[in-house]
Amino acid sequence: MKKLINQPQNVVAEALRGMAAAHADLLRVNAEPPYLVRRDAPVQGKVGIVSGGGSGHEPLHGGFVGTGMLDAACPGPVFTSPTPDQMLAASHAVNGGAGVLHLIKNYTGDCLNFEMAAELARAEGIEVEQVLINDDVAVQDSLYTAGRRGVGATVLVEKIAGAAAEQRRPLKAVAEVARTVNDQSRSMGMALTSCTVPQAGRPTFELAEDEMEIGIGIHGEPGRRRMKRASAAEVAVMLVEPILGDLPFRSGDEVLAFVNGMGGTPLLELYIMFAEVARILEGKGIRIVRSLVGPYVTSLEMAGCSVTLLKLDGELLQLWDAPVKTPALRWGA
Amino acid sequence: MKKLINQPQNVVAEALRGMAAAHADLLRVNAEPPYLVRRDAPVQGKVGIVSGGGSGHEPLHGGFVGTGMLDAACPGPVFTSPTPDQMLAASHAVNGGAGVLHLIKNYTGDCLNFEMAAELARAEGIEVEQVLINDDVAVQDSLYTAGRRGVGATVLVEKIAGAAAEQRRPLKAVAEVARTVNDQSRSMGMALTSCTVPQAGRPTFELAEDEMEIGIGIHGEPGRRRMKRASAAEVAVMLVEPILGDLPFRSGDEVLAFVNGMGGTPLLELYIMFAEVARILEGKGIRIVRSLVGPYVTSLEMAGCSVTLLKLDGELLQLWDAPVKTPALRWGA
Repeated sequence: MKKLINQPQNVVAEALRGMAAAHADLLRVNAEPPYLVRRDAPVQGKVGIVSGGGSGHEPLHGGFVGTGMLDAACPGPVFTSPTPDQMLAASHAVNGGAGVLHLIKNYTGDCLNFEMAAELARAEGIEVEQVLINDDVAVQDSLYTAGRRGVGATVLVEKIAGAAAEQRRPLKAVAEVARTVNDQSRSMGMALTSCTVPQAGRPTFELAEDEMEIGIGIHGEPGRRRMKRASAAEVAVMLVEPILGDLPFRSGDEVLAFVNGMGGTPLLELYIMFAEVARILEGKGIRIVRSLVGPYVTSLEMAGCSVTLLKLDGELLQLWDAPVKTPALRWGA
Repeated sequence: MKKLINQPQNVVAEALRGMAAAHADLLRVNAEPPYLVRRDAPVQGKVGIVSGGGSGHEPLHGGFVGTGMLDAACPGPVFTSPTPDQMLAASHAVNGGAGVLHLIKNYTGDCLNFEMAAELARAEGIEVEQVLINDDVAVQDSLYTAGRRGVGATVLVEKIAGAAAEQRRPLKAVAEVARTVNDQSRSMGMALTSCTVPQAGRPTFELAEDEMEIGIGIHGEPGRRRMKRASAAEVAVMLVEPILGDLPFRSGDEVLAFVNGMGGTPLLELYIMFAEVARILEGKGIRIVRSLVGPYVTSLEMAGCSVTLLKLDGELLQLWDAPVKTPALRWGA
């Protein structure tokens, strides 16, 4: 296991110390229970948005804490759900009197724990809404998940709901925007290599030198099929076609195209993939009006990528373009 | 070789197509000779800033083309210098009548070709200044380099000189700012793994499972020493101590601390490294007032990191904070 770490059991706590040291202008870190919260939280009269999940997907979620996106993030151990007490403490920390929105990737542990946290918060009189993110078209039910997994769309939901909250929309309206983004998004991913959870010390799964896995999850969960390596052009077709057919996307649609790196794939390759995705969409009469390219929802050092398409309308576009100021996503501020 | 590519010989051209498709709002791509130029170039009355070098270090340099940073970037083949005709064409494309500044990482091929391009441009009446970037304290002379190599400081020089040019400072003043940033910066890097140039098809060098290389260059050039793997805390000492001793940095200094990923190392580990760097600096009475954490000067999919420290003053701080709008670095716009 070749990693820049100290003790495997301390990776999340130490990375949080690094986040606090690097981004004190944007956020604060609470050590116990662990959560990150935007520096000026709670913002009075603004819906507080909380997300979270297992660590190992950085910059998701902590890198998206700041003005115009998340108010707080709850990091679990690597690939393991955070606990209800983290979520409850984070909900308290961001509650500015307008209620709290939980954005939850659809994994069984995350769902159960966020549900418990919501019950506890409501018992204390905090209004809580929850939105489930389940954009992965690869598989129905999987290791860790009943139904579809939440993957790349999470970034888009967090950004757009964050902008709606910044405009001081009420809780139900912010939740509605988040649901719309999830409903209009579809994703699919693939891997060229496995990844190693620090405390496990060995790869999560094995992929031969001439193999790849199509439809993989962000914890190395099995995908649709394991097959011989293919070209970027062929991989793009295998990812984009199921996405297009599922919504379905149609000629004339305007989309945000997001090519996400899994952690170990360099940007050079992600742009080659973006070119292939753009070519397919152009051929279908689907217009890319916004783009995002880079490692935003990762699986430690896994090599691979995912594609997410979000069907845009004027409202979502305006919220996407609104200022955001977080460690990993920033513009207009 | 597990890469998301089509033909190995086409990786740069195809990635440029992806850049053009993803970032048409920020930049344009010229296919032959290949260069990227900011969308509104040439900007009349503004110094035009051109950089470039071998590909495989993305987002460097193309990801830094846009308002407040580079006017153009010339991508060579992977780990190979671009040609004088690329640099000359890019210089023409950004010449708004206030002269052109070439920012050159200190590698023999880059230096020779930029020098030739400058001669050709001057012969046509374009005023050209050149600034050499050589911040790597690891080795004196190396494969590809006489003197010190240019590495992480390149991002800082490009950002800060870009801000000075945006303020319409004259050519000699912008070059002077760039030289100051280089003079006040020191870097050192390390690798846990090798990387594979697509057209070579095999790793550039070999590192055993229990080994790392300290002081490595961004093309896998040999460093100071190969040794047994060490903890993040130990690696941080091995990188930071030579940096501190070289300038030297002193108690009371204010710095920008940049922990750079080599391509295959996930953000989780970079933040652990940042925490260690911050702890060392705090112990020395050196204050981190700005930070940058992420993969900005990469070596394809190499696992590893580098540390760069820039000694700041009020002038450099104000230029660092000025708005920038590029694919890979963006704030305030």
